[in-house]
Amino acid sequence: MIILKLGGSVITRKDSLTPTLDSNNLTRIAREISNSSHHKLIVVHGAGSFGHPYAKEYAIGSEIKSTQELTRKKMGFSKTQNSVKNLNAQVCQHLLEQEIPAVSIQPSSFIETHNKRIINADLDLISKYLDLGFVPVLYGDVVLDMDKKIKMAVLSGDQIVKYLAENLKPEKVILGSDVDGIYNRDPKKYPDAHLMKVVTSYKELESTDNIQTVDVTGGMGGKLGELLELAKIGIESEIINANHDNNIKKALNGEKGIGTLIRNEK
Amino acid sequence: MIILKLGGSVITRKDSLTPTLDSNNLTRIAREISNSSHHKLIVVHGAGSFGHPYAKEYAIGSEIKSTQELTRKKMGFSKTQNSVKNLNAQVCQHLLEQEIPAVSIQPSSFIETHNKRIINADLDLISKYLDLGFVPVLYGDVVLDMDKKIKMAVLSGDQIVKYLAENLKPEKVILGSDVDGIYNRDPKKYPDAHLMKVVTSYKELESTDNIQTVDVTGGMGGKLGELLELAKIGIESEIINANHDNNIKKALNGEKGIGTLIRNEK
Repeated sequence: MIILKLGGSVITRKDSLTPTLDSNNLTRIAREISNSSHHKLIVVHGAGSFGHPYAKEYAIGSEIKSTQELTRKKMGFSKTQNSVKNLNAQVCQHLLEQEIPAVSIQPSSFIETHNKRIINADLDLISKYLDLGFVPVLYGDVVLDMDKKIKMAVLSGDQIVKYLAENLKPEKVILGSDVDGIYNRDPKKYPDAHLMKVVTSYKELESTDNIQTVDVTGGMGGKLGELLELAKIGIESEIINANHDNNIKKALNGEKGIGTLIRNEK
Repeated sequence: MIILKLGGSVITRKDSLTPTLDSNNLTRIAREISNSSHHKLIVVHGAGSFGHPYAKEYAIGSEIKSTQELTRKKMGFSKTQNSVKNLNAQVCQHLLEQEIPAVSIQPSSFIETHNKRIINADLDLISKYLDLGFVPVLYGDVVLDMDKKIKMAVLSGDQIVKYLAENLKPEKVILGSDVDGIYNRDPKKYPDAHLMKVVTSYKELESTDNIQTVDVTGGMGGKLGELLELAKIGIESEIINANHDNNIKKALNGEKGIGTLIRNEK
């Protein structure tokens, strides 16, 4: 089984102020998945411009100090949830058009967090969908948080990927991103920076701040942290550039070395 | 707490061959909910023309006899799921526009059936949403069925209503329908048929086949059966005509006698 993450920056116009789908990219990616030789597959996608503007406007996940703030934040939660659900419906629609039996699994319907980390999520149904040959599709969402001070949290696609991987033990995790992988130092500052073929620990990078700047959203640092933890328990992952034709197809077909491989030292 | 069912025939054009929303009706109903004095509320809506045409085309819930049939039915499941999710997104959008903090709860993400009846559904998260003042919105969906012969089933909004009511014990169940309630005999055949104010058992109806014809979809018979079972455990419900202005608002405000009340004999 493979877990494929599709970054929000790959399937949406992440710089857009209103939810905007990157339909061309999504059509191409759905075709690559359909033409690959994968057997069991879970897709997890980010929220991109369908989630981040709302989550930020309503500061979902920050401390709630008054009843008015709770009332306002609940509306923000509902709006965010509905917007990312619309994105998910469009992702599933694109997969369906390529004859992929995609089944949407809504995180806010069955996952809860405590202090923004998943504490409760029954994956039994996902396993059953997989066993029948469906392709479960999860996504970055808003969820209830058991911490009384914040009550709600943004749950990133990356955290979902890590939780699924820890519990379902896939052969591989593929992260479709809008960059080629991890560089040894910031390629924008240092022309001699080179793409790392393999990363097994933070130590291998010449400085840890470069990983903050590889991805304009600052997300790559967090991603790498989650992936290194997966590597420790023996789950290999690869960050690839999903904007380049056939990278996803090749990775699903088992080809390695397309981007940066994150694995343990062994 | 009140459970409000919105029939598929109320929020969609049920006679349409393609998914068609009844947006005017939905806007009016959302406004009535918003203007009512309800405290805790769960909304469950039917699938109408967003679900039935697909479920029928692919015969979801019928026995699967070959691998080809399974492959075809999986695509049918995925298409139905995506279509009813789109309806749910629009229902939630209409509620949000009236400042109701609606939270979508996707049945296929957490419910499974055996022989088309719910056997496994954790309602803990729904209770938590209710406690925070959210309005959970569930809907008729397709789900995995543990019977190996059929593997998938159509889960009606009515069955969800019954399961939620049995487990969460609401003060009242309100069924917003496109008819005024239950008649003692078929009003289309007998001009002297009268609307029943109260029904406590099938015996009170002059013939049980009339309940099949009250609703063109033949659904009223099944609905009444589920509601009579709820009555037995002390949960009162009322079938009202949601197409008439203010009926939903009145029912949410506690008014009785709008349609047909289903309760135990006491």
